[in-house]
Amino acid sequence: MANHDALPLVILTEQFAKLPGIGIKTATRLAYHVMSMPSDEVEAFSQALLHAKRTVHYCKCCENLTDSDFCPICNDNSRDKSTICVVETPKDISAFERTGEYKGVYHVLHGLISPLKNILPDDLKIRSLIARVQQGNIQEVIMATNPTVEGDATASYISQLLKPFGVTVTRLAFGLPVGGILEYADEVTLYKALENRNAM
Amino acid sequence: MANHDALPLVILTEQFAKLPGIGIKTATRLAYHVMSMPSDEVEAFSQALLHAKRTVHYCKCCENLTDSDFCPICNDNSRDKSTICVVETPKDISAFERTGEYKGVYHVLHGLISPLKNILPDDLKIRSLIARVQQGNIQEVIMATNPTVEGDATASYISQLLKPFGVTVTRLAFGLPVGGILEYADEVTLYKALENRNAM
Repeated sequence: MANHDALPLVILTEQFAKLPGIGIKTATRLAYHVMSMPSDEVEAFSQALLHAKRTVHYCKCCENLTDSDFCPICNDNSRDKSTICVVETPKDISAFERTGEYKGVYHVLHGLISPLKNILPDDLKIRSLIARVQQGNIQEVIMATNPTVEGDATASYISQLLKPFGVTVTRLAFGLPVGGILEYADEVTLYKALENRNAM
Repeated sequence: MANHDALPLVILTEQFAKLPGIGIKTATRLAYHVMSMPSDEVEAFSQALLHAKRTVHYCKCCENLTDSDFCPICNDNSRDKSTICVVETPKDISAFERTGEYKGVYHVLHGLISPLKNILPDDLKIRSLIARVQQGNIQEVIMATNPTVEGDATASYISQLLKPFGVTVTRLAFGLPVGGILEYADEVTLYKALENRNAM
């Protein structure tokens, strides 16, 4: 925004521009849009920000985001509490829940180990995962971190930590995405698909 | 967001999704991002929304957005008050100001006449424009609405209204965009470029 713009508008634009994936042009457009919104809608938006930040925290069991002590999945008695799916972010839970196939529970790490970004194991929610496994009754821990260098490294690190507890640790399958086109698959994916081929 | 998400997060996501150009996936990403922001930054964002909406209103002269009675451009004594550039939105002013070439003042219509969308002349800031011209001392009114059907229609409508006041009414030039490639220009633009050709 230029210096002829009203200061409160400039400040609002800067706030929008801090959000991920929102550049200065989009932020300007959003700030102008807010000006054309009814006052009560702007107040609702402003309140929603504060309310979400103030009331939402980590689930005492799985570290998912929730506004009560335990998240709805941990509270759900129909879920299989002996299987834990370990994910990087709360968003990943939504992805698994959309499949409707997974009946176990989750554990959110809130990051991946990355020495380059100075993210060490202690910065993640690994200790609470170990504590859950230590309490017993866990059959399987599924490492569902992203198939990236950091995701793989974090999965291996945690699987080493879990070995002494005699729990089965598995990793998501790698292969061709369903509906994908072989021609466009990268070499590593194709190699993994070949390596993990199944009998028909 | 799925029903396992915390309600305050769902509400925040819905608020983000109301913004133009932000779909449900982006809204979810932004809501989760807010959860990872420090509390004071979320409060600053929330405040910026309220403050901008409460303090920013229309300039008493040109209808631009401002937080004082008159906008900085109308308050600027070095600007040529005898030339008014008529634009659709406050954003358009920023575009002209970036050129650094225009020394006159502006008038913001806050929309374009569109019978299909039920936007009639009385819904725009046309009356205050006529009043400015009526007060005298205006030499030229530049119609700088977009080169669309609605922009052209609004420009013609206003130019008819201004005729009795003996003021010069001009329209932005149409032609090839600078740096554009002839091959990709649409037929109407090319026709306009040909029609308005200049001696070299």
